[in-house]
Amino acid sequence: MLNVSLHVDQPTLQRQIDELATYSESSPPGVTRVLFSEADVNARQYLKDLCRDAALSIREDGAGNLFARWSGTDAVLAPVATGSHIDAIPNAGRYDGTVGALGGLEAIRALRRAGFQPVRAIELIIFTSEEPTRFGIGCLGSRMLAGTISAEAVERLRDREGRSFDQLRALAGCDEQSLQNVKLSHGAYDAFLELHIEQGAVLERENIPIGVVTAIAAPSTLRMELTGVGGHAGAVLMPHRHDALLAGAEIALRVEQSALKDGGPDTVATTGIFRIEPDAVNSIPSKARLEIDLRDTDVARRDHVLKTIEASALEICRRRGIDLSLEVLNADPPATCDSGLVGTVAEVCEALGFRHRKMISRAYHDSLFMAQICPASMIFIPCRNGVSHRPDEYASPEHIAQGVEVLAHSLARLSATPEEF
Amino acid sequence: MLNVSLHVDQPTLQRQIDELATYSESSPPGVTRVLFSEADVNARQYLKDLCRDAALSIREDGAGNLFARWSGTDAVLAPVATGSHIDAIPNAGRYDGTVGALGGLEAIRALRRAGFQPVRAIELIIFTSEEPTRFGIGCLGSRMLAGTISAEAVERLRDREGRSFDQLRALAGCDEQSLQNVKLSHGAYDAFLELHIEQGAVLERENIPIGVVTAIAAPSTLRMELTGVGGHAGAVLMPHRHDALLAGAEIALRVEQSALKDGGPDTVATTGIFRIEPDAVNSIPSKARLEIDLRDTDVARRDHVLKTIEASALEICRRRGIDLSLEVLNADPPATCDSGLVGTVAEVCEALGFRHRKMISRAYHDSLFMAQICPASMIFIPCRNGVSHRPDEYASPEHIAQGVEVLAHSLARLSATPEEF
Repeated sequence: MLNVSLHVDQPTLQRQIDELATYSESSPPGVTRVLFSEADVNARQYLKDLCRDAALSIREDGAGNLFARWSGTDAVLAPVATGSHIDAIPNAGRYDGTVGALGGLEAIRALRRAGFQPVRAIELIIFTSEEPTRFGIGCLGSRMLAGTISAEAVERLRDREGRSFDQLRALAGCDEQSLQNVKLSHGAYDAFLELHIEQGAVLERENIPIGVVTAIAAPSTLRMELTGVGGHAGAVLMPHRHDALLAGAEIALRVEQSALKDGGPDTVATTGIFRIEPDAVNSIPSKARLEIDLRDTDVARRDHVLKTIEASALEICRRRGIDLSLEVLNADPPATCDSGLVGTVAEVCEALGFRHRKMISRAYHDSLFMAQICPASMIFIPCRNGVSHRPDEYASPEHIAQGVEVLAHSLARLSATPEEF
Repeated sequence: MLNVSLHVDQPTLQRQIDELATYSESSPPGVTRVLFSEADVNARQYLKDLCRDAALSIREDGAGNLFARWSGTDAVLAPVATGSHIDAIPNAGRYDGTVGALGGLEAIRALRRAGFQPVRAIELIIFTSEEPTRFGIGCLGSRMLAGTISAEAVERLRDREGRSFDQLRALAGCDEQSLQNVKLSHGAYDAFLELHIEQGAVLERENIPIGVVTAIAAPSTLRMELTGVGGHAGAVLMPHRHDALLAGAEIALRVEQSALKDGGPDTVATTGIFRIEPDAVNSIPSKARLEIDLRDTDVARRDHVLKTIEASALEICRRRGIDLSLEVLNADPPATCDSGLVGTVAEVCEALGFRHRKMISRAYHDSLFMAQICPASMIFIPCRNGVSHRPDEYASPEHIAQGVEVLAHSLARLSATPEEF
């Protein structure tokens, strides 16, 4: 433990969380900040300004990942890192990601105010596009850092309007560097620790302020494009139809059934995107696009459910005379968090007198991919009613402050040499 | 019959159909012309210019309905009218509506070229928003002419972006007149006759060039707003969900089943609009909006199916813990076409030596509402594979010319005094 007292400036942190929420494409209380939108670009600038105010040196890679470094006394040692994301899905809340981004920065400021001097550098990382809103694939920035998606695959991505990652990153001014250079080598960091709201109700229910994450559930995303036959809603009789919406509706219900019957209690499956064309009341839908999110703590069971969903979709589309194009956008393995790192965070909680519990993360995070290049774990704090991805998402100032305090002490331990403890 | 020969200038008509198709918000071959969009406003101007070139006097009402008049020798007599619409649903074809609008104009020009002088005035009417794309309700212009929707109800309409009819009509410059003055008195016209592509495959299958419409199926539109509980797709376990999309999916499938099982062979039911929020792959859908189009030639059976759909939606939403707001946007009676008018068109076909058949219209048209203020009927021509509301919608130049010829001769008979025949 750091032997000096450490003060988290919660009022300033809360003000910055609230200010960051004003960079939004939707009206309050909802926050919408889609990758490389004007709101996102301005929010990035806001973060950079705060990092400069904190005397951190800033680097941005070709993917738009932002690295703000507090240099250590030993430049040879790999740094320790913390951080999260600042993008937000349509009409989301103000705490998902931002607590770890701004809270990580406050942890660094608090350590500096306390007179701490790191041996290993401490870096704050703001990851590009943790949310899959624009390109249908989540954790794009950390995925690229870990090398689990190639620069070529990123270049092939297109958003809803057909724009490429390369076109859009120019808006954020990070197009001068090559996407080829984003990938980091294994061991580029000594450790990564992410502060985040739980996005579930376990901590709240048990009245525990800190969760230490031991594993992150394995996520998978499927995209289905259904092509039927359109026509006039008045003129084409029912038996002659090939309605893409109805096939999509059957698939969405089968996705639910697969999670309930073929999965286990931890299996969750969601049809989160469902769009039809031409989307006119007097036209038979000719096209439907579904994107399905599937997660499980058990990767074999997750893959079994994935297979049953694929088989169901094929059967439904064959029966209804619908063309199906099915793509598995990602099927990532789960992450096991580093036991040493989990132990460090748990010890810090005990030293601070904060109740804590070990837990898995059902949501996935940039930590899932950071775990592929260095020891990684997460610090969870409660959020009201377990609600996230909604305007009424809320974490209390007290819980946020406790989370930052645990993070700051953990970073201090990780960035100092063992002899100092 | 008109005793002079009558020549339809098909090349000019086809050129104008093709030119009108260039006023579009989507790329060719698809045509998108939503009410009061820039494309619609420019297309209206194109039509007005053509009407002026044909020496017709133009009037526009507060709803944006356009009336182009060829004065008759007897100004006391109610005019006869023809016409259709020029708006187009997203990514539609170039013949729905436009054949009756531009073909009606060509019928008038052909009569003028033939030296015909009408006794009753002949009017071409271009109706506002036959398609329900913007406000969710079809035949807005003719509905207002017939007085089946009040000016107050029109003022309450809002489009997807929350804009009112009043705000939008200013773009088309028809906001200087009151919506209160749009309604016409019963008998304002002596007859109304609309030329239109069949939007079905009956004429093509039977190789008959002309259909004479005896009745128009009764349409109804339901709007449902479903509100469930959103949340993170990874964090909320399956048994705790209230997913609005899944309730909507069940409803859409039940709509299909109701038409097939509770309706008759002529019953058609379509969920044409299906939108979810937040529409993000990693979020449980909290909202869904469905718009359902239901039609039948038998109004009692149509209303029975409507009731079963309502009851099913209530049951599904209750079971899934979803709030349901259900609104019947319209439930119009079917129209029976005037037998005298049907007889006139049939006689013209016989005199011209064109095969024809009497038939019902499954699609609904402005004629459904014009039938409430005057004798009305429709002239159908074949369209390839019965396809409509799609970019590959097609009617042959020969069939269009035959339709215009039948229309022109019918208008001549209707606008002359009986003694002339």
